[in-house]
Amino acid sequence: MRAARYYGKEDIRIEEIPEPKLGPGQIKIAPAFVGICGTDLHEYLGGPNFCPTKPHPVTKEQIPVTLGHEFSGTVKEVKEPSPFKIGDKVVVQPSIFCSECTACRGGAENVCHKSGFIGLSGGGGGLSDSVCVPADAVLKLPDNVPLDVGALVEPLSVAWHAVSASKAKSEHTALVLGGGPIGLAVVQCLVAKGVKKIIVSEIAKRRQEFAKEFGAHRVLNPRTDDVVKIVKAATGGAGADIVFDCAGLKASLDVACTAVKVRGSVVNVAIWEKEIMFQPNMLVFSEATYTAVLGYQRPDWVAVLDSLKRASGIMKPANMITRKIKLEDLVEKGILALTTDKDNQVKILVDIQG
Amino acid sequence: MRAARYYGKEDIRIEEIPEPKLGPGQIKIAPAFVGICGTDLHEYLGGPNFCPTKPHPVTKEQIPVTLGHEFSGTVKEVKEPSPFKIGDKVVVQPSIFCSECTACRGGAENVCHKSGFIGLSGGGGGLSDSVCVPADAVLKLPDNVPLDVGALVEPLSVAWHAVSASKAKSEHTALVLGGGPIGLAVVQCLVAKGVKKIIVSEIAKRRQEFAKEFGAHRVLNPRTDDVVKIVKAATGGAGADIVFDCAGLKASLDVACTAVKVRGSVVNVAIWEKEIMFQPNMLVFSEATYTAVLGYQRPDWVAVLDSLKRASGIMKPANMITRKIKLEDLVEKGILALTTDKDNQVKILVDIQG
Repeated sequence: MRAARYYGKEDIRIEEIPEPKLGPGQIKIAPAFVGICGTDLHEYLGGPNFCPTKPHPVTKEQIPVTLGHEFSGTVKEVKEPSPFKIGDKVVVQPSIFCSECTACRGGAENVCHKSGFIGLSGGGGGLSDSVCVPADAVLKLPDNVPLDVGALVEPLSVAWHAVSASKAKSEHTALVLGGGPIGLAVVQCLVAKGVKKIIVSEIAKRRQEFAKEFGAHRVLNPRTDDVVKIVKAATGGAGADIVFDCAGLKASLDVACTAVKVRGSVVNVAIWEKEIMFQPNMLVFSEATYTAVLGYQRPDWVAVLDSLKRASGIMKPANMITRKIKLEDLVEKGILALTTDKDNQVKILVDIQG
Repeated sequence: MRAARYYGKEDIRIEEIPEPKLGPGQIKIAPAFVGICGTDLHEYLGGPNFCPTKPHPVTKEQIPVTLGHEFSGTVKEVKEPSPFKIGDKVVVQPSIFCSECTACRGGAENVCHKSGFIGLSGGGGGLSDSVCVPADAVLKLPDNVPLDVGALVEPLSVAWHAVSASKAKSEHTALVLGGGPIGLAVVQCLVAKGVKKIIVSEIAKRRQEFAKEFGAHRVLNPRTDDVVKIVKAATGGAGADIVFDCAGLKASLDVACTAVKVRGSVVNVAIWEKEIMFQPNMLVFSEATYTAVLGYQRPDWVAVLDSLKRASGIMKPANMITRKIKLEDLVEKGILALTTDKDNQVKILVDIQG
């Protein structure tokens, strides 16, 4: 079968490898659509970061590994009895964790000290014709949700996890810094949770349009707008109840800590490339709270799927898909396009069976 | 009357000034004991910082101003009817705020945008023979609490406010970074709230002893002990539920963010002198929360006084008083001793009537 395998920096190969065999408790999936994530881009341009260069503590595998951790597919093989049957449309929560560390035992397996992802850390990946995954990592896609939208459940779950942690309420004003895939997913989750005032700060024009399309009530350009001043003016001088930092830059951190209201909450959804200069007094003089979140847990996936299946369609993420490509075009039209055509792209999907 | 007045950097003068007259809603206090605070030291060595160089937005005063914001005293003059009578032993909550800004209207007058302190921002101060303060800033000292201990209510209220914000529970492990006056006050408030495991990290030997004396169960020296490793080992690998940063250094911030458990809470009680290098991923990979607190509010003062008056004496802060001096010796034996004899001193009190 075909598989996109990561060998190291700027070295991803579409290869023929043997089809995996079903292990205990596993289900075989034929991937349908696979989203390309910023993490994939970072592995390609500057990795290996997540991809293991020595045996991963849980999967025991190391590079080369098959990529693809945001994916939908159809069930190809099960061991009876199973809640799934051949042909079921499904999504896969790619979390890998040890079940033994203090994080896992404390119910926070998303920050497991040995955590990883199917499609990054070994255990196969979505960018292949077949992948065997634990049955309890598989969730059925509601009938009314197409397989391409299914590939968006992973980034939407990241956002759902962040919005849940923020304790956003409908009467809140939320400021979202950064209109990339995660920022736009946060906007959609805020809309789904009924938040009435959503302000997005984003530089790229096309992403600003996306933000509006997905439900932002106001979109600012931090290059030309005084974001803090405008947010304060829009809230009677108080500042935003919640600020989501989906950019992860010194500039966004400073705006977040200044635009947040007294005793408000800054929620960090970004992974940081390096240390930055920071003045904690920004939080001291407003008694604000800075909360960091990472990834997702099963309830986030269930909530996103539930929101997608509602007849009213509160979340309409289909327009996040800005391009579909073939597996053979992964690097050129997929990964590299996320750098060269970044501002016009939100999610590029690989159509495995296309 | 005598008053210690701040004119600028390294310029505090004990002067004769006219005794203040009672204004509307005010009570006249004869200060008894006045604590010297790190803030006073910073004003002397590197100010003016808090002391206004142009009219303060609330008090309308500017330097020279009378110092002394941690003080007890006796009631000297009241306008009838009043809940106070001449001779009552009292403490004064020195908070100055505008009552109009979004912070004040939101019930967070401790972070009022125009905030200040009696004894720093104008409106007189404790380091004088008389001071007129708003009646609603005055609280009666319980009969069993002596006037010198009364001067400790202010720093204890800072700590109470921080411990309340931390939501510390008796089953928690709390790590306190820094054993200065505020760190030691935090230890006492944790003891008062029944927290069963309190670990303090402090460099100075005498302050380590104080920490033990005030109820810390374990005291570490960050110069020789691997604080993170020891805290993890003491908590089954998990880390501290709550970490209080009472030091405000890059080193303490890094330890705080590393020693805290998954989804634990770092509470910052420090004021930061400058920006530092910070890597937010430290919080991301444990989904920890960083909360900043500032000062206190009325309920913190009430709670501290209530804790002090209990017959069982849960808080026994008298030993925080390491020296008593005369007003005339304020700079030499008071303020300067906090730099030259820092490690042996916790609270130096000025005995105004002594």
